[in-house]
Amino acid sequence: MKTFFPKINKIAYEGPDSRNPLAFKHYDPDAMVAGKTMREHLRFSVAYWHTMKGTGADPFGGGSLLRPWDASEDPMTAAEDTLRAAFEFFTKLGVDYYCFHDRDIAPEGDTLAEANRYLDRITALAGTLQADTGIKLLWNTANLFSHRRFSNGAATNPDVAITAYAGAQVKKMLETGHALGAENYVFWGGREGYATLLNTDMKRELDHLARFLHMAVDHARAIGFTGQFLIEPKPKEPTKHQYDFDSATVIGFLRQYDLLDHFKLNIEANHATLAAHSFEHDLTMASINGLLGSVDANRGDLLLGWDTDQFPTDLYSALYAMLVILEQGGLGSGGLNFDAKVRRDAFDLEDLFIAHIGGMDTFAYGLKVAARLIEDGVLTDVRRKRYASFDSGLGAEFEAGRLSLADLENYTLENGEPIPVSGKQELLENIINQYLIGG
Amino acid sequence: MKTFFPKINKIAYEGPDSRNPLAFKHYDPDAMVAGKTMREHLRFSVAYWHTMKGTGADPFGGGSLLRPWDASEDPMTAAEDTLRAAFEFFTKLGVDYYCFHDRDIAPEGDTLAEANRYLDRITALAGTLQADTGIKLLWNTANLFSHRRFSNGAATNPDVAITAYAGAQVKKMLETGHALGAENYVFWGGREGYATLLNTDMKRELDHLARFLHMAVDHARAIGFTGQFLIEPKPKEPTKHQYDFDSATVIGFLRQYDLLDHFKLNIEANHATLAAHSFEHDLTMASINGLLGSVDANRGDLLLGWDTDQFPTDLYSALYAMLVILEQGGLGSGGLNFDAKVRRDAFDLEDLFIAHIGGMDTFAYGLKVAARLIEDGVLTDVRRKRYASFDSGLGAEFEAGRLSLADLENYTLENGEPIPVSGKQELLENIINQYLIGG
Amino acid sequence: MKTFFPKINKIAYEGPDSRNPLAFKHYDPDAMVAGKTMREHLRFSVAYWHTMKGTGADPFGGGSLLRPWDASEDPMTAAEDTLRAAFEFFTKLGVDYYCFHDRDIAPEGDTLAEANRYLDRITALAGTLQADTGIKLLWNTANLFSHRRFSNGAATNPDVAITAYAGAQVKKMLETGHALGAENYVFWGGREGYATLLNTDMKRELDHLARFLHMAVDHARAIGFTGQFLIEPKPKEPTKHQYDFDSATVIGFLRQYDLLDHFKLNIEANHATLAAHSFEHDLTMASINGLLGSVDANRGDLLLGWDTDQFPTDLYSALYAMLVILEQGGLGSGGLNFDAKVRRDAFDLEDLFIAHIGGMDTFAYGLKVAARLIEDGVLTDVRRKRYASFDSGLGAEFEAGRLSLADLENYTLENGEPIPVSGKQELLENIINQYLIGG
Amino acid sequence: MKTFFPKINKIAYEGPDSRNPLAFKHYDPDAMVAGKTMREHLRFSVAYWHTMKGTGADPFGGGSLLRPWDASEDPMTAAEDTLRAAFEFFTKLGVDYYCFHDRDIAPEGDTLAEANRYLDRITALAGTLQADTGIKLLWNTANLFSHRRFSNGAATNPDVAITAYAGAQVKKMLETGHALGAENYVFWGGREGYATLLNTDMKRELDHLARFLHMAVDHARAIGFTGQFLIEPKPKEPTKHQYDFDSATVIGFLRQYDLLDHFKLNIEANHATLAAHSFEHDLTMASINGLLGSVDANRGDLLLGWDTDQFPTDLYSALYAMLVILEQGGLGSGGLNFDAKVRRDAFDLEDLFIAHIGGMDTFAYGLKVAARLIEDGVLTDVRRKRYASFDSGLGAEFEAGRLSLADLENYTLENGEPIPVSGKQELLENIINQYLIGG
Repeated sequence: MKTFFPKINKIAYEGPDSRNPLAFKHYDPDAMVAGKTMREHLRFSVAYWHTMKGTGADPFGGGSLLRPWDASEDPMTAAEDTLRAAFEFFTKLGVDYYCFHDRDIAPEGDTLAEANRYLDRITALAGTLQADTGIKLLWNTANLFSHRRFSNGAATNPDVAITAYAGAQVKKMLETGHALGAENYVFWGGREGYATLLNTDMKRELDHLARFLHMAVDHARAIGFTGQFLIEPKPKEPTKHQYDFDSATVIGFLRQYDLLDHFKLNIEANHATLAAHSFEHDLTMASINGLLGSVDANRGDLLLGWDTDQFPTDLYSALYAMLVILEQGGLGSGGLNFDAKVRRDAFDLEDLFIAHIGGMDTFAYGLKVAARLIEDGVLTDVRRKRYASFDSGLGAEFEAGRLSLADLENYTLENGEPIPVSGKQELLENIINQYLIGG
Repeated sequence: MKTFFPKINKIAYEGPDSRNPLAFKHYDPDAMVAGKTMREHLRFSVAYWHTMKGTGADPFGGGSLLRPWDASEDPMTAAEDTLRAAFEFFTKLGVDYYCFHDRDIAPEGDTLAEANRYLDRITALAGTLQADTGIKLLWNTANLFSHRRFSNGAATNPDVAITAYAGAQVKKMLETGHALGAENYVFWGGREGYATLLNTDMKRELDHLARFLHMAVDHARAIGFTGQFLIEPKPKEPTKHQYDFDSATVIGFLRQYDLLDHFKLNIEANHATLAAHSFEHDLTMASINGLLGSVDANRGDLLLGWDTDQFPTDLYSALYAMLVILEQGGLGSGGLNFDAKVRRDAFDLEDLFIAHIGGMDTFAYGLKVAARLIEDGVLTDVRRKRYASFDSGLGAEFEAGRLSLADLENYTLENGEPIPVSGKQELLENIINQYLIGG
Repeated sequence: MKTFFPKINKIAYEGPDSRNPLAFKHYDPDAMVAGKTMREHLRFSVAYWHTMKGTGADPFGGGSLLRPWDASEDPMTAAEDTLRAAFEFFTKLGVDYYCFHDRDIAPEGDTLAEANRYLDRITALAGTLQADTGIKLLWNTANLFSHRRFSNGAATNPDVAITAYAGAQVKKMLETGHALGAENYVFWGGREGYATLLNTDMKRELDHLARFLHMAVDHARAIGFTGQFLIEPKPKEPTKHQYDFDSATVIGFLRQYDLLDHFKLNIEANHATLAAHSFEHDLTMASINGLLGSVDANRGDLLLGWDTDQFPTDLYSALYAMLVILEQGGLGSGGLNFDAKVRRDAFDLEDLFIAHIGGMDTFAYGLKVAARLIEDGVLTDVRRKRYASFDSGLGAEFEAGRLSLADLENYTLENGEPIPVSGKQELLENIINQYLIGG
Repeated sequence: MKTFFPKINKIAYEGPDSRNPLAFKHYDPDAMVAGKTMREHLRFSVAYWHTMKGTGADPFGGGSLLRPWDASEDPMTAAEDTLRAAFEFFTKLGVDYYCFHDRDIAPEGDTLAEANRYLDRITALAGTLQADTGIKLLWNTANLFSHRRFSNGAATNPDVAITAYAGAQVKKMLETGHALGAENYVFWGGREGYATLLNTDMKRELDHLARFLHMAVDHARAIGFTGQFLIEPKPKEPTKHQYDFDSATVIGFLRQYDLLDHFKLNIEANHATLAAHSFEHDLTMASINGLLGSVDANRGDLLLGWDTDQFPTDLYSALYAMLVILEQGGLGSGGLNFDAKVRRDAFDLEDLFIAHIGGMDTFAYGLKVAARLIEDGVLTDVRRKRYASFDSGLGAEFEAGRLSLADLENYTLENGEPIPVSGKQELLENIINQYLIGG
């Protein structure tokens, strides 16, 4: 059996003191934290497009990363090699999940029928490899943005023939996901947006998008697929404006078009920050609406204006994310998918392992610290006390909808100037640091 | 009768060739454009807080603009002088509307009761001056952000006593607006947001905000006020995150909390751009939802990260705004309110006139060009043709919800690769320029 | 002779009223403005990489624009076809200049020697086509960023072998430019910057960059090339930080490393705005230092964080640019190069013409308005009066360096509080609009 | 003796496990790290303007923080109370340094002479308190931006009378600093920039700025002041463009105007990020030029576009800063000044202590980790190896300036395609995390 990472052994947990770059310092999959194993909490997933298919290309240069699994000149051989390399990678890394697009895992064909035949061959192999390894499909999706036909969108394309093509791809991917036991199906609105308002009928495009999503829901029901549907917000890039701008926008859209029962959100760190939100903001917005379904775990560079998709190594960010996730009782069928890519100059194959190890350790550490913060009740106590005036008396009446503005006026006339209370932001930031660096 | 602008006469329309800085070049109030007078289309309003009360202060320095109407040491005398100066300004400028907050028009009191007494005295004078001049109140609002009690919000404050105070102010302002014939009532969520998520219960705060707005609706009904309620989105500043982030967020919120029947949006140019949207984007988003109620006409600096509130002199921006407004048949009870301030170093009283004249001419010109574009059908034709595939056949079936993904797949298998069509952005931009600079 | 644009005739000036999208409305090449023809003022140039070699690809999709000149499977045939198509395009458009990189005009080879042979064959053809058409080479440059070898920079690469490769390419391009009569040679620091400071010795990299530029100067002297050297600032993208951040940074670098006598700046609009400057700011900074050498005329989208390289259609921006250029007496050997690309969905060949026509008309109009503003002395008068206190007395003494702080203190103690003067920003913005839209 | 913080005792070091919010967890002033005490390394300083004079005001509201030392209606009594409170604060906190502006420490007067008299009285008291406590003046400066006279700048004001006023203030502050033993004198260019280019002669303004700085240097020499001059870069706010944009710009300016021998840079974290640089970038740029003189230790919010001046609690940022500082051998006469303010709702006096403790612990921890990284040679080894090709052979010849482009070409023709080497960014980020969280 061909091996693609002959120099890499299975990555082991060696603890915080290990100096081995190819070992986990914090991710100990079967260690218990807050009542579950780390593996159950974190549900890590590898993104096929970046890790297996990423070339290092950017707008200023072609591929820089030469991969042994991509060496064959025959596209189907390369696709099969890539899939085998992927499962070797997943296994050695020790993740339980992976995610893919149709056009990552199998080549584009000259016709839809041909592309679908390619897909069938490859996904048959994927099924075998899943069975052999126990690795599961967190989610799959259709690539509705790379081909030139989708330059002006897919579900929101002004030409119904292109929307039809997109629908055909989604149908195939739903069926593929169903066959492979996918736990979710994701929509990322690649080019669902506009380049200029001058030629755009935004109302009609949004109506089309909703119609398209309803058709996907109907098809899933028809074939018996019961995985969770997810929408992944992103505000811009490649289009000037993407319709799925951020959590709040997507939630509003789902409610407006009667899709709330069928969809949750897949929040990506770098997409949140491109929308001028913190990662934890968009996670919280989704979570308080009962709609946080899954996470694309990566990191942007807040000084840059594009999706850098870096591996998540910011400990604060991982801590804040795990706080939201633990507080809502976990991600359900979702997981932490590393939608992240090594840098253009990460020429060594081991860099792929090192990058994932870094991301996994970062979230494992975030999990441990979040669990301690929650166990100690630090932030929950602060919040509970802060809003206590709404737990009884006037506040409870207010929340119950039993007051009028006249009641509020009377209260104020009788009670005079209220005394504002410190928000204690500085103290809370110090506490976060203390938990983060131990002690 | 004391005059505050003795050197300024009524501003007249002198046409495009005039070199008089104190004359209109394009705003000819009674000239007909697209079936209405300019004045009817544009419904210009002066913002009391900036124009009469603005001091030029910024985070790095105190007031720089010394106003003769603010000279008295007695706050109520100063308030009356300011109001008289305001009506002199409105009259000489030739606007039909103005807008104010409670704490612009009358001083804060030591108690709510005292503040309300001040308000009553001043608004009585305002009523008289309105009657004398024919100038009307476009909208009023309560200042729920300047006083230290509101440091952590008003409707979303963690302390119900502070929310009560805010409710009392809103009650008073609804009654004041009703008495003065206000055509709208605006909520701008000054500090309704958070400084840090660490101490914030976002769900509870949003629930409170909705409850508060329902109480305002109920009170308006109780007193017979029939003006339009408006919410003004802003994404950040002064808080880190403002709940009324942008059009899409506010629309989602209104729908979620069953407030859609009672509210429209007041879109501010500079707030849209702070949310990383173009002004026309947020106008369009509101308009396609039937919710564009009024406009805060100003301009930001896209290279700066705060609300610069500059007077609107960008002709493109005014043109795009007027296109949206004309296409939806006007602003109804809303108007174009200059929520804009002269620069810190605009020491001359005439600068206030010059700034408003610039804004009014810019929008008047935008109106004229937009009307020509619409009359010529330029953009509407482009859009109509672009989406024509949805007007019949497969597209019409799609829109009607009569298709499944299987239908789309069949269509694609039968029809093969679709031919994508140029979006013609470059051409449309050239056409905009041609209309803008004549020819 | 094969033609690539059979449906397009030579673009003619038809005046502002023409509705022909394939005609100039304002660019009348031989019309006189401020003592020179428009063609002499504007010195328009086409960017080979975007216009001939642009594919519409972006980080989320491959090429969308299928060009007839790129159809051959033989790279050298495609290169020759492209060059012939280019000169047909230049001629029909009516520009006098073009610009290219080595790897635009000829294919990469398996070795440097092979690449150089390809270049020699293609540049021989370029020389012939230049001679046939009268079209000249504004500037050329070496592509030191697309190949994977340059992932970590060229002149600033940590490996001297890669720096050597870059030097070889620059040597060849200097010789090529010399042979083709290039009027300038440009350095754009593609990947001269860093991805992370953790592995970077910034001092050593900057020293290397300066050393490399000195070697280019020396080689130019050795071969008799007398064109102007230019550096093009850009702050980021593709790297996290590009060393040639903005005008001020580059000027400081040139002065520090004794390169001021040999280099000027090539200012790109979209690069200036990525650095959080207005286009006119970076033009002005270069100009007041006597270092504004040439311009990459394009436009970014200030709401997006990457280099969108749109065609310049903003009339304000063109006006402000032409003011700086006219005030410094023109661009000398430089020109206005359209470093701009049609959008990904501009599938029609005519879109290339329409886009350039829009850019040329925009700058032609900007030129006309700038010339009128200068002739009328509008802004120069304002500035002259504003600083008049420095023309004599204390101010003149100050400028001459004949005062001490004690002199300033004495003056203030004697003269008391100065009266600040309005900056009249609002008035000046109104005047700009008046000039822009006529009257 | 009146006490202003009766409930606060001297802040003690209690170690990482302490849960006392009013104790240090990491800052142990006399503990040795890398051969010096923490106190010697860190040289912490309190910023008078924020800590003693900050009111919590922002553009949307007046003061929220009511301070007992500011209660007197007599300005001089309030100034004296504030100074006494300040020294109580410094002493209890355990910092060795403070910084002030003229108009922080003493009131503005109706005339310059009066203001100077106020200053003399207050600075006499400051001298006494310094002597009593051993606390020293890190730097002082003149406030040349708050008063309306400086609306258009001070040294760059278009009116020489205003520049003269500024000169008088600087003269007085140099003398004051000299009298109080200030170790540095800082220039922060408050409004030295422009609001619009339309009315600005940038060349003349920059010339004036340089002239003004030379006059300060001359006066310092005249009075025998030998402290270090510092310029603090900031790119924007309050002006649209500040001339001291960033490190690179200021260094270029100093070199251009022959000021390099007299000035170093005072780098502020939040100013660096407003200029789209990381804090460590601007520190590094200053340091490699031998010009890193002092640090304003604070933190911005990268999702907000203004100077939030938050207390520095980001451990990464402190670590990176301390790496630069240790690598250059310390800050010399500079220090870490907390140019940071508590949030608007930090109503409790203890919040001031908590905020400073957080900043001090963060930098103390950064110091410890940085020292370990340097001791272990982690990053230095990486960098040394990465550039090793320049240490001998071709690279050494290159650095020595002994090569021509022809030499580089020959090398490449002989040696063929170079093999690029991985930058190992992912590995380095993992190592940083490992050092940060122990192990």
